[in-house]
Amino acid sequence: MTAHPVDVVSTAPYGAAADPYDAAGWLSATARTLYERGWMPGTSGNVSVRSGADAVLITASGLGKGRLTSADTVLVQADTGTPVRPGSPRPSAETCIHLAVYRAFPMVGAVVHAHPPYATALASRRYRAGGGPVRFTDLELIKGMGRAYLDSIEIPLFANWREVPRIAAEVGDHFAHPATDPAPALLITHHGATTWGADLAEASDRLECLEALCQLALLIGD
Amino acid sequence: MTAHPVDVVSTAPYGAAADPYDAAGWLSATARTLYERGWMPGTSGNVSVRSGADAVLITASGLGKGRLTSADTVLVQADTGTPVRPGSPRPSAETCIHLAVYRAFPMVGAVVHAHPPYATALASRRYRAGGGPVRFTDLELIKGMGRAYLDSIEIPLFANWREVPRIAAEVGDHFAHPATDPAPALLITHHGATTWGADLAEASDRLECLEALCQLALLIGD
Amino acid sequence: MTAHPVDVVSTAPYGAAADPYDAAGWLSATARTLYERGWMPGTSGNVSVRSGADAVLITASGLGKGRLTSADTVLVQADTGTPVRPGSPRPSAETCIHLAVYRAFPMVGAVVHAHPPYATALASRRYRAGGGPVRFTDLELIKGMGRAYLDSIEIPLFANWREVPRIAAEVGDHFAHPATDPAPALLITHHGATTWGADLAEASDRLECLEALCQLALLIGD
Amino acid sequence: MTAHPVDVVSTAPYGAAADPYDAAGWLSATARTLYERGWMPGTSGNVSVRSGADAVLITASGLGKGRLTSADTVLVQADTGTPVRPGSPRPSAETCIHLAVYRAFPMVGAVVHAHPPYATALASRRYRAGGGPVRFTDLELIKGMGRAYLDSIEIPLFANWREVPRIAAEVGDHFAHPATDPAPALLITHHGATTWGADLAEASDRLECLEALCQLALLIGD
Repeated sequence: MTAHPVDVVSTAPYGAAADPYDAAGWLSATARTLYERGWMPGTSGNVSVRSGADAVLITASGLGKGRLTSADTVLVQADTGTPVRPGSPRPSAETCIHLAVYRAFPMVGAVVHAHPPYATALASRRYRAGGGPVRFTDLELIKGMGRAYLDSIEIPLFANWREVPRIAAEVGDHFAHPATDPAPALLITHHGATTWGADLAEASDRLECLEALCQLALLIGD
Repeated sequence: MTAHPVDVVSTAPYGAAADPYDAAGWLSATARTLYERGWMPGTSGNVSVRSGADAVLITASGLGKGRLTSADTVLVQADTGTPVRPGSPRPSAETCIHLAVYRAFPMVGAVVHAHPPYATALASRRYRAGGGPVRFTDLELIKGMGRAYLDSIEIPLFANWREVPRIAAEVGDHFAHPATDPAPALLITHHGATTWGADLAEASDRLECLEALCQLALLIGD
Repeated sequence: MTAHPVDVVSTAPYGAAADPYDAAGWLSATARTLYERGWMPGTSGNVSVRSGADAVLITASGLGKGRLTSADTVLVQADTGTPVRPGSPRPSAETCIHLAVYRAFPMVGAVVHAHPPYATALASRRYRAGGGPVRFTDLELIKGMGRAYLDSIEIPLFANWREVPRIAAEVGDHFAHPATDPAPALLITHHGATTWGADLAEASDRLECLEALCQLALLIGD
Repeated sequence: MTAHPVDVVSTAPYGAAADPYDAAGWLSATARTLYERGWMPGTSGNVSVRSGADAVLITASGLGKGRLTSADTVLVQADTGTPVRPGSPRPSAETCIHLAVYRAFPMVGAVVHAHPPYATALASRRYRAGGGPVRFTDLELIKGMGRAYLDSIEIPLFANWREVPRIAAEVGDHFAHPATDPAPALLITHHGATTWGADLAEASDRLECLEALCQLALLIGD
């Protein structure tokens, strides 16, 4: 077997001391892995890690994630999304959604956004049926969303406004007064799923669990 | 093609003479393979092998199975599930289910538990329809469950109690008076599948067959 | 990308001059590839090549196909299925079906049998609906079954008798008076698919096309 | 993780200065990748790049795409499809469809044609329901088809005439008077999907997005 790329992802949380260079390597490896799974078709999807108190390292815009290298990442200011260094590649167009998550959850070290098919389809079916959060009940994999002792979780579902900052604003508003211990994930109808955690490994693990939950929900039916 | 990890799994049954160090390597390789297939999303799933008369080597708790190494395993006492050595990683929270299987079947050398989607969905649909065992009839892959000459097999279906020892107790009770030649597998609703065999290769082979049987049952329909 | 195992399969037909040693390497590589795709769960599936006028090299019985090596093959007599050399591994229990195909089609150099899910499910649904051949109409991939200029093909569908020689006998009877230019494939209900061709590459290509045709038939619906 | 083959595909558009030798390597790597994904079963599928003003390099006919090498490509004249050099392998039987696309869109540098299952099934269902273009609305991945600011796109749907030049002629006619900014893709019922772009990476990215859009459309339902 070839080693899995996530094998080399440290489980240490990213923080002020994280080396941006290594973080870039981990970011691009994570993006390539998600691409290989078919969850980032074309140039879609974006991944970020917190870098110190005031910055976020995020994948660059418009690149095929299967071809991503360390150079295809950009350090942006956590408050504005502006690249820290002149001449940086253009950050992902969805940087503002990542920043909304980092602002809402100070302990979060990494955010992953992708287009896994079952999560996207379940979100869209729910939205078409009137919207509201997607709730999972009884399924064991709920524990993989960091919620070991609950029988159900709710994943908030957002509209896919053409203007990305409008999505980010709604995400920010939603989490300004979150429920106690909200699930580390959100869904955007007709678009995809976003998860977060202390580090890239945890954020990726949660995306896997969310997609598996959504596949099970579709297979089990009503 | 890259070599398949199971390529290096010995087909010799694990027993008193098994080298725990090599067993750890095989355990982690098996877990990585099942993760790669998508059957152990996030940190879910657990794998064990019997180690001598009184101990079981099992994967540690809470780790991403795609990142597992030999060090992420722990030797526990077969009767209590307590780590044999102080300072060991914490064993899987589902160790007690593995131990119930080893107690019921003295010849079993390995147990594999994962969350393959079709088996989990079929178990949940059956449970919602009133429960009782999942029966497969006529399908050739029944032979892959160690039952060459039968036209059908039944896989017992258990409730997914929040208290894992309660699941283990029901598994133990069920197999205390098993049918003649019971199938080497069980399903837990909304949770996943567990299979066993003389060694890791056989237990894994049976998990593959069970998942394929469940996929066929869903594709063929009623 | 890692090289695909079929990369090393010669496209030259196997014949009297074929080196059995290399054929064993190709056989096991083909089996591993089909296993990796999920079409040979557990120890299921079997692959063979003609070896000279009177013998067939086939995969051994009861082994996980993901772990197969050159040593896990056995040369059998084409008329009886008996191993040519004493001390050989036991040949696949389905050797007689392979031999029925070689007898019916003298130009065939390789036979592949596996359990791809869509082909198995479609066969089972057709059988349950009354049986008769599975017909594909209009689909472009019909050309991949060696039938470039027809609008439809029929794949014969056989019962899955517990006694494998009875299946082989029915296959032999069916092809004793075949239609003009029969499709190089057969289906066995609740069991799987068998394809053949001049060599392993062609037989494998046809299995891929048959499985894709069956997936499309299920996705398109009635 | 093994490196993804598209990792080595340059993102520079192919043009008059492109080295045909490297283009052949990129063509065959792209074909192998699409084969590995299951989108080119058997010997199906074909890929091409523009080579200078008057020629196109295309994959050869009748070869398994998983086994393709640089030598399995042929330079053809862009107007006639005739091989530029005597003794070349026979070009893909669907070369004329590629040429129709190159003639319609002078800026296109690469064309990819494959048989991804969801696109093929959706095309066939639409055709059976009366035909007309396949329209995608609201889905975020529309942006992956080069159409960032539209709420919907239409992919033209063609009949699968047995005579391939007739398909090519209908493609040519369709795009002789295209809508403003037509989508870089077409579907052929019961057959597959074709996408194009400035280079192989862009054409491949768009095929991924189209297949993901079709999978979502089938999962979301009406």
